[in-house]
Amino acid sequence: MALRAGDHSQAAMNGLKEKVLTLDTMNPCVKRMEYAVRGPIVLRALELEQELRQGVKKPFTEVIKANIGDAHAMGQKPITFLRQVLALCVHPDLLKSPDFPEDAKRRAESILQACGGHSLGAYSVSSGIQLIREDVARYIQRRDGGIPAHPSNIFLSTGASDAIMTVLKLLVAGEGRTRTGVLIPIPQYPLYSAALAELSAVQVDYYLDEDRAWALDVAELRRALLQARDHCRPRALCVINPGNPDNVYAEGSQFHSFKKVLMEMGPPYAEQQELASFHSVSKGYMGECGFRGGYVEVVNMDAAVQQQMQKLMSVRLCPPLPGQVLLDMVVSPPEPSDPSFVQFQAERQAVLAELAAKAKLTEQVFNEAPGIRCNPVQGAMYSFPRIQLPPRAIQRAQELGLAPDMFFCLSLLEETGICVVPGSGFGQQEGTYHFRMTILPAMEKLRPLLEKLSQFHAKFTREYS
Amino acid sequence: MALRAGDHSQAAMNGLKEKVLTLDTMNPCVKRMEYAVRGPIVLRALELEQELRQGVKKPFTEVIKANIGDAHAMGQKPITFLRQVLALCVHPDLLKSPDFPEDAKRRAESILQACGGHSLGAYSVSSGIQLIREDVARYIQRRDGGIPAHPSNIFLSTGASDAIMTVLKLLVAGEGRTRTGVLIPIPQYPLYSAALAELSAVQVDYYLDEDRAWALDVAELRRALLQARDHCRPRALCVINPGNPDNVYAEGSQFHSFKKVLMEMGPPYAEQQELASFHSVSKGYMGECGFRGGYVEVVNMDAAVQQQMQKLMSVRLCPPLPGQVLLDMVVSPPEPSDPSFVQFQAERQAVLAELAAKAKLTEQVFNEAPGIRCNPVQGAMYSFPRIQLPPRAIQRAQELGLAPDMFFCLSLLEETGICVVPGSGFGQQEGTYHFRMTILPAMEKLRPLLEKLSQFHAKFTREYS
Repeated sequence: MALRAGDHSQAAMNGLKEKVLTLDTMNPCVKRMEYAVRGPIVLRALELEQELRQGVKKPFTEVIKANIGDAHAMGQKPITFLRQVLALCVHPDLLKSPDFPEDAKRRAESILQACGGHSLGAYSVSSGIQLIREDVARYIQRRDGGIPAHPSNIFLSTGASDAIMTVLKLLVAGEGRTRTGVLIPIPQYPLYSAALAELSAVQVDYYLDEDRAWALDVAELRRALLQARDHCRPRALCVINPGNPDNVYAEGSQFHSFKKVLMEMGPPYAEQQELASFHSVSKGYMGECGFRGGYVEVVNMDAAVQQQMQKLMSVRLCPPLPGQVLLDMVVSPPEPSDPSFVQFQAERQAVLAELAAKAKLTEQVFNEAPGIRCNPVQGAMYSFPRIQLPPRAIQRAQELGLAPDMFFCLSLLEETGICVVPGSGFGQQEGTYHFRMTILPAMEKLRPLLEKLSQFHAKFTREYS
Repeated sequence: MALRAGDHSQAAMNGLKEKVLTLDTMNPCVKRMEYAVRGPIVLRALELEQELRQGVKKPFTEVIKANIGDAHAMGQKPITFLRQVLALCVHPDLLKSPDFPEDAKRRAESILQACGGHSLGAYSVSSGIQLIREDVARYIQRRDGGIPAHPSNIFLSTGASDAIMTVLKLLVAGEGRTRTGVLIPIPQYPLYSAALAELSAVQVDYYLDEDRAWALDVAELRRALLQARDHCRPRALCVINPGNPDNVYAEGSQFHSFKKVLMEMGPPYAEQQELASFHSVSKGYMGECGFRGGYVEVVNMDAAVQQQMQKLMSVRLCPPLPGQVLLDMVVSPPEPSDPSFVQFQAERQAVLAELAAKAKLTEQVFNEAPGIRCNPVQGAMYSFPRIQLPPRAIQRAQELGLAPDMFFCLSLLEETGICVVPGSGFGQQEGTYHFRMTILPAMEKLRPLLEKLSQFHAKFTREYS
C-alpha cells in the first residue's frame, strides 16, 4: 500500500513535503488507546536487558518480567501430551515413530482427518475445526453439570483477546448520548480499555471492593450504570473471573460458571439474557500463550446477529490451526484409561500446586511488609498489592509528569530489574496506588524477588519521607 | 460478558422482552460488510458436502472448492523442511532424534534460543521474534538487490490480513468529506472492501484494464482520484501484486518490488513516500494458510506513527509463534551447502512447476470455450475469467434478487459441485460478468473440472437463450 493518493497538487508532486500519516492526521481513536501491560515500562525493561547484554553495569544482573502472564517465559515447562499431539499434527511422518504414545497418535490422526487435505496448513472454517468445537461444547457441558452447549455457538479465536474484540465490535453503535457504553470492572485488564478506545465506545467503570478481596458490589454496579445513562447507552457488562474450573486456588473459593448460574435462574433470563464467555490456552496450567488459541461461547444471541458475527470472523479467515489443536487437548485431556493419563495428570498437578504455593507466598510476604497490603490471590496468576506512597514521592512524580505508581514502578525497575505494571494502567480508586505482579517467577526466585520488592518499597518510602 | 447492562426498567427486568443485540441495534459498519470468498456460495457448498455425506443423491460425487487459495486443502503437500523445523520447535525432545537433518535442528535451536523460556508457548514481542525480523530484513534486502531493509521496520503479523487491517486502521480519520478514502483496484480482494466497510472508510474504486491482462491504467487511476476528492479525502493507494519473487509464472513477466522502484526514483520520493508492503506464508509455494504467518514492512513511516502502530499491535499481544517460525523458513530457506537443500529445492520447484502448468492449462481450456475469455494467469494462483451471460439468465437472476454471476455460480455449484466465487464479489466493470477460480485443484482433476465448467456454461447459455 502506497500512502499518498490524496495530495496531487503540483507542489506536493514535486516537494512531497509532508507525510500522509502523522500524529495529527492518524486515527484519533488509536492515538487515545493505552496498553499498560506492554507500555513504557516494558519498553524500558527491554532496553535494560539490551544494556545488560552489552555489559553495562547495573545494580542487578537480570531483568525479571513479572509484568505479563507469560508462564513459559518464566520457565514453566510445556505439558508433554499437548506438544506431542501438536508435533504429530505438524509433521505426520512422526505417526510412524515408536516414541509417541498411542493416544497422542490417535488424537493427532482424528484432528488431521478433520483438517482440509489432512494438513494444518489448510484454512479451517472461520469458526474453527468442527471436531474441536464439538469437544469444546462437551467440555462446557461437563463443566456446567450437563447444561447443554452447542458447537454452533462456539467460535474458536486467536487467543481470547481476538474474540473479545469481535464481540465488542458487534456491540458498538450510536453517536453522542446513544453511543454504546460497556461496564468494566476496575481494576480491569487493559485490553478492555484499549479495545473500547479503539472502537470509540464509552468505558463505564465500576469499582471492585478491595476490602472484600475485590468482590463485585451490586450497589456500586448500579451507581455506575445510573451515572453512565446520562452520557451513553450502556449495553454490556463485562465481568472478569478465572474462566475455567482449573485455576482457582484459595481455600473456600470455587469456580462459578456464569452460564450455569444464568441457566439456573430459569426463564425469562435463561432463555433471553445474552452472554458471551471467553477462554484461552494462554492462561491456566498450560500457559501456551504463543499459540494464540481461544474460544467464545455465545448464549441466547439473536440468530441473525450470530450470522453477522460469523461473517465478521470470516474476514480474518480462521484462527491459527496450532492454537486450535492445543485447545482441543485442554478441553479434552487424556482419560484415566489412556496411556498418557498418568504423566499428564502429574505435570498438570505439579503446575497447579506450584501456582497455589506461589499465590500463598506472594500474599504472605507482601503482607509482612509495612505499607504494602495484598489481597489473597484466589485464582489465576496475578497479584495486585496496594502500596502506600509518601507525599513527597507523589509530588516528585507530579513534577515528572508521571502517575505516582508509575514513578514507583520505574524506580523499582531501574534499581532492582524487577518489572511490574503500575496500578494506574489497570485503574484504581483515586488516591490509592497499586502495582500488578504475576506470581509466575520460579519458586526459588519468587521469595527473594518479593523480599527485594518489599525492601525497595521501604527504602523508597524512607527516601521520600 | 453479559449483555444487558442498559435496560434497567422494571418491565425489562421482569420481561426481558427484547435482545440487546439485534440487526437493528448492532454495529452498522459490520452489517454493511461483505466477504464473498466465504460468502453464501461457500455456505451452500458446505451444506452440499453435508448432504453428500448423508447419502443424498446429487449429480456429482464431491464438492470441489476452487473458491479460496487454500493449497493444502486441495491436496498440495507441505514442504518437508518447514514442517521438520516447526516440529522440532514444538517438541524439542525431537532434537535428539536421528530422523531430522542437522540444518533443521540448528535452525530450530536458534529459534528456540530467541523465544522466551526457549518455548513457542511464550509470547514474543508484539512485532515478532527479533531473530526472524532480522531474517525478513535480509530477505527483502536480497530481493531488492541490496537496498537496505531494517528489522525495526518489519512487523510480523497473523497472516497478511491482520497487518493490512492494522495499517488501514491507522489511516482512518475525518468525517464526511474529510473521511479517509482508500483507492483499491477492481477486481479487488474482498478483504479490502470488508476492512474499509468495517472501519467506515471510503472505498474508492479504480478499474484494472482487462484487455491488457488486468494492467493498471494511470489515466483511470487519476480519474478515480479526482472523482473521489468530491466526497472524501483519498489518502492511500492499494496495489495488489504477487508479493514475492517466487510465484510469477508467465513468460516475459517478472516480479517488481514497489520498494525497489520507489528507492530507484530517488529523492524526494525515496526519502518521503510512505509505503507498506505485505507478505504471508499462506500463498506461494508453501501454502501454509492455517498457520496465519505474515509480515509488513513499512517504509518512510513517521517515527511517532510507527510507535502508535507498535502500540496498536501490542493490544493483540503477538502473532502466533508457529506462523512466525514458518515465515523464517520462507525468508531464509536452506543454502546449497545445507543437508536439506536438495530435497527442499526439489519440493519447491515441483510445486512451482505444477502451478505454472495449471496456470497455462486454465487459460487454454477456458479460451477454447465460446463465451468464456480468460487472461493469462501470470502469477499467484487465481484465474478471473469473463463470461457471457444470455439476457434471459440476467433477467432470471434479477427476478431471484441475485447478481447475474452469482446466479451462474450457484447454478454451477448445484449441478456440478464446482464452487467458484462470482465476479461481483470482487468488483467488475458494470455489465461484465466473471467468476474467480483458483488453479489449485490437482492436475488430474483440473482438466476435467475446467472442461465440465466450460460445458456447463455452454448448457446454461443454451438454456437461457
